Amino acid sequence: MMKGDLLISSMIERAERFFPKKEVVSRTMNGIQRFSYKQIGQRTRKLASRLDEFGISREDKIGTLAWNHHRHLELYFAVPSIGAVVHTINIRLAPEHIVYIINHAEDELIFVDEDVFPLIEATHQNLRTVKAFIVMTDNELPETAVPNVYSYEEWIASGDPDYQFPKDIDEEAPAGMCFTSATTGNPKGVLYTHRSTVLHSMSLAMADTVGASETDVSMPVVPMFHVNAWGMPYVGTWLGSTIVMPGPRFTPKLLAELIEQERVTMTAGVPTIWLGLLKELEENNYDVSSLRAVVCGGSAAPLGMIKTFEKKYNVPFLHAYGMTETSPLATVSRLKSYQRDLPEDELYEERAKQGILVPGLDMKVVGASGEVAWDEEEMGELLLSGPWIADDYYKDDRGEEAFIDGWLHTGDVCTVDEEGVIKIVDRTKDLIKSGGEWISSVDLENAIMAHESVFEASVVSIPDPEWQERPIACVVVHDGKTMTKEELFDFLRPQFAKWWLPDDVLFMEEIPKTSVGKFLKRALRDEVQKHYQV
Amino acid sequence: MMKGDLLISSMIERAERFFPKKEVVSRTMNGIQRFSYKQIGQRTRKLASRLDEFGISREDKIGTLAWNHHRHLELYFAVPSIGAVVHTINIRLAPEHIVYIINHAEDELIFVDEDVFPLIEATHQNLRTVKAFIVMTDNELPETAVPNVYSYEEWIASGDPDYQFPKDIDEEAPAGMCFTSATTGNPKGVLYTHRSTVLHSMSLAMADTVGASETDVSMPVVPMFHVNAWGMPYVGTWLGSTIVMPGPRFTPKLLAELIEQERVTMTAGVPTIWLGLLKELEENNYDVSSLRAVVCGGSAAPLGMIKTFEKKYNVPFLHAYGMTETSPLATVSRLKSYQRDLPEDELYEERAKQGILVPGLDMKVVGASGEVAWDEEEMGELLLSGPWIADDYYKDDRGEEAFIDGWLHTGDVCTVDEEGVIKIVDRTKDLIKSGGEWISSVDLENAIMAHESVFEASVVSIPDPEWQERPIACVVVHDGKTMTKEELFDFLRPQFAKWWLPDDVLFMEEIPKTSVGKFLKRALRDEVQKHYQV
Ligand SMILES: Nc1ncnc2c1ncn2[C@@H]1O[C@H](COP(=O)(O)OP(=O)(O)OP(=O)(O)O)[C@@H](O)[C@H]1O
Ligand SMILES: Nc1ncnc2c1ncn2[C@@H]1O[C@H](COP(=O)(O)OP(=O)(O)OP(=O)(O)O)[C@@H](O)[C@H]1O
Ligand SMILES: [Mg+2]
Ligand SMILES: [Mg+2]
Repeated sequence: MMKGDLLISSMIERAERFFPKKEVVSRTMNGIQRFSYKQIGQRTRKLASRLDEFGISREDKIGTLAWNHHRHLELYFAVPSIGAVVHTINIRLAPEHIVYIINHAEDELIFVDEDVFPLIEATHQNLRTVKAFIVMTDNELPETAVPNVYSYEEWIASGDPDYQFPKDIDEEAPAGMCFTSATTGNPKGVLYTHRSTVLHSMSLAMADTVGASETDVSMPVVPMFHVNAWGMPYVGTWLGSTIVMPGPRFTPKLLAELIEQERVTMTAGVPTIWLGLLKELEENNYDVSSLRAVVCGGSAAPLGMIKTFEKKYNVPFLHAYGMTETSPLATVSRLKSYQRDLPEDELYEERAKQGILVPGLDMKVVGASGEVAWDEEEMGELLLSGPWIADDYYKDDRGEEAFIDGWLHTGDVCTVDEEGVIKIVDRTKDLIKSGGEWISSVDLENAIMAHESVFEASVVSIPDPEWQERPIACVVVHDGKTMTKEELFDFLRPQFAKWWLPDDVLFMEEIPKTSVGKFLKRALRDEVQKHYQV
Repeated sequence: MMKGDLLISSMIERAERFFPKKEVVSRTMNGIQRFSYKQIGQRTRKLASRLDEFGISREDKIGTLAWNHHRHLELYFAVPSIGAVVHTINIRLAPEHIVYIINHAEDELIFVDEDVFPLIEATHQNLRTVKAFIVMTDNELPETAVPNVYSYEEWIASGDPDYQFPKDIDEEAPAGMCFTSATTGNPKGVLYTHRSTVLHSMSLAMADTVGASETDVSMPVVPMFHVNAWGMPYVGTWLGSTIVMPGPRFTPKLLAELIEQERVTMTAGVPTIWLGLLKELEENNYDVSSLRAVVCGGSAAPLGMIKTFEKKYNVPFLHAYGMTETSPLATVSRLKSYQRDLPEDELYEERAKQGILVPGLDMKVVGASGEVAWDEEEMGELLLSGPWIADDYYKDDRGEEAFIDGWLHTGDVCTVDEEGVIKIVDRTKDLIKSGGEWISSVDLENAIMAHESVFEASVVSIPDPEWQERPIACVVVHDGKTMTKEELFDFLRPQFAKWWLPDDVLFMEEIPKTSVGKFLKRALRDEVQKHYQV
């Protein structure tokens, strides 16, 4: 058989050849623009030729600080297609983190959105390796004292629309780089390869996972600086799907409008996004009947939310689990054919789990005494391996603890039911140890969020002299609703053993979140512990 | 990223772990049997351990002479999982071809069905490398003078059901071997690798190709000795689909019954199989409403047949194209989303074409003056490349003409329309050259088969002193129908230029076919030329 190196350039080439008329719908600061794949292809080739001319070599890192839009998509393809590495940087990180990350990656160039440019103005003097900044805008360049600043459109204007991508790239060469979300500590860098990106795209296109298809109008809400927007821009382009890019600073209203106007069939994001959308749907009328799948991951999807979307709005939900380290698709929650007749409640219980390992990967769940039983009770850490799983962090000692004997130790604790479906109980770092037993903060959160007055909830521990740790519930009540502690306890009591019940409930305006919208338990724990002065 | 070698053993392991209760429904000489994937897994491990004990080493060839059934499936996984090569031999070839193939491949062992065993009795003295014959039967071993004959069930009985598959196999190691169908000459051997098999399985599972899924009840009618039954046993097992194996010497009636009783959702085979099934459906009543896709390839699917299946029986057809050399999936005929509103006639015209290149492969269509225009007119030879395309024939000089500069020259001539959809016009060897212009025998056949009185038809050339070659139509009329030459000419005249019309029509009882049911034009041409004494 031919080796047939799996290269990212072949994905954009397929879109250009077979789907030149299909479109990328891109929202920028200046409104919605449409580009055919023919145009995207030409612009990508122009960009690639300019990078080449600029002297970018194999494995050089190219940074991006950008929202989801067509120019970011062009970078996704142009950079790896010439053998360099597209390094997507989380624009919401603290400036000192961003400086650290850019220096650590040794980025040669930074492509930056106009509204993010002030960040460059504030930090550029600390960026040790960056040779130029290319501002992605439809407007005039901002006046600035920063040297070597170019406009993207002007920069690529002289590029070659017929530039030929080199084909002598090894499939295991690095192609992309993302940092983890910094939920548990400093972000860690992960390098993707051409091989891992193409295989991950194939896995997203499988009917039993996400089933990405040419027929999709696919809207990645998850940021392109967060695990490559879960790979959706890659697979969507490859298959010739229509891609809708929601652009900068979108609101739930804007997402609902895009779904209605563009007839979006598939979209992906974290639960906080969907909670926001749900609120919008409850307040205003939209036609969301085009949706065939709302992919939800990044943190546990609350069962109540899944149910409301499906039963009230007839919008099919797809709960998935993954990490920056896993490209990210690792598990997808889909019922097996013989589970379809489960009673509705069990059916939703099952579907709210993180799901079954996707084809192509391997897993182990390891507890104190080896691999756990598939009994939905025994807990253990999830270990993963396979061709789209990282084998190290980028120049970072922490890799030694996470990658051992060919297995990624996810730091996520789960149970497995007899169907092989995993349920994430907690992160190792968030599990609450009370009287020698574990309490799952995720289970408590899910139960609390199922209460109709609750908008969102998070459970963290405080140290306890007698029990070691005890759970505290932090609750945000829906606008216009009220709730007392007793009401909540009455609601929870029938569902949990007594010792699982939180010691207290703190009503809050907002739960602190990470840059990608996950509950930031580090910060919440600090807040709560300060409150109780423990 | 981890390399994560793509190994066939991981596919059966997935079925065992996640789908132990799902079943393989296997029809043998003794009737229908059901095996769970748990059982199939254990039996496969037993078989693997016995092969290992027997001294089978990496890259050794193991021959099979068998129909589609569970034991053949066990061989599909056990043999490559220990690093050896499963060599599926076409039981319908002439005995001297089979002897040649077994000696050429240097098979160490032959696994043979009981009803095929007479072939071994007749030829065993000429088999130079075979150390033992293992007869796959539920019954007593036949009395025989052949030495070293074992019963499959007895042979694996002492095997280890917990045998661990070695994981130090390189993904590019050989895993399987098939010979081409010998339509145009002697069969040519193709070696598949673990990598090509797993990637090909992924491609079959993509929503935009065949969309193989756990939810499928999948019935490969195409023989397991013909291009690995188009990869369906591999992908079906991997995903935990229910697999229905139609077993030995099935009839259209039996297929229709299996579809009805087992609620088959997806099945695959050559057009002659589906023509036979159609006849059965017209004569007797069956419930075939479970079918979501009848995959049809191997030769051109007649438009009329596709239409009848879809419009009369509501059975969706999926026309695909491939070769032994391409694993085989190369193109699939699916409409693009924006083509769905085509007028019905155009829609069927489009769908009856061979389709669009599957994601992961590359193609070129090369005519006399370089790559052809995508205008549906210019003809050229189809060239293919990619990770599941062969790069040579097994110890065969003919590889030099077929594999050039990284491209497989398919020997198939096609046009490409502006959507990039290919239409196979003919094999290079079957094209009819008349007065310096090409006539497509496939187009004429399709048109003739669309006549309601015609069961099947094939068009071949005879030499012509004036025009070089001229077409002759060979027609088989439906039982109970009649037809005259003039009727046929009246039917064809409005559809073709005058010089395309056949010079004559020969009515026949049957068109000669290859061992896998394709029109055997070599033989037909001889017959026709003898008839005209040219
Ligand atoms: N469906 C899900 N249900 C529950 N948790 C999930 C789900 N999907 C992802 N997660 C959590 O998100 C983690 C992966 O997130 P990501 O790679 O974005 O960085 P992070 O782990 O949040 O940040 P860091 O590793 O820097 O602390 C997983 O390890 C898991 O804890
Ligand atoms: N959908 C299809 N439409 C038309 N022709 C097809 C289709 N699918 C396959 N074919 C034909 O079948 C060929 C591949 O068949 P296969 O590999 O079984 O051996 P063969 O070409 O028939 O035999 P040999 O190569 O030994 O002469 C293709 O090259 C093509 O000619
Ligand atoms: Mg993490
Ligand atoms: Mg051939």
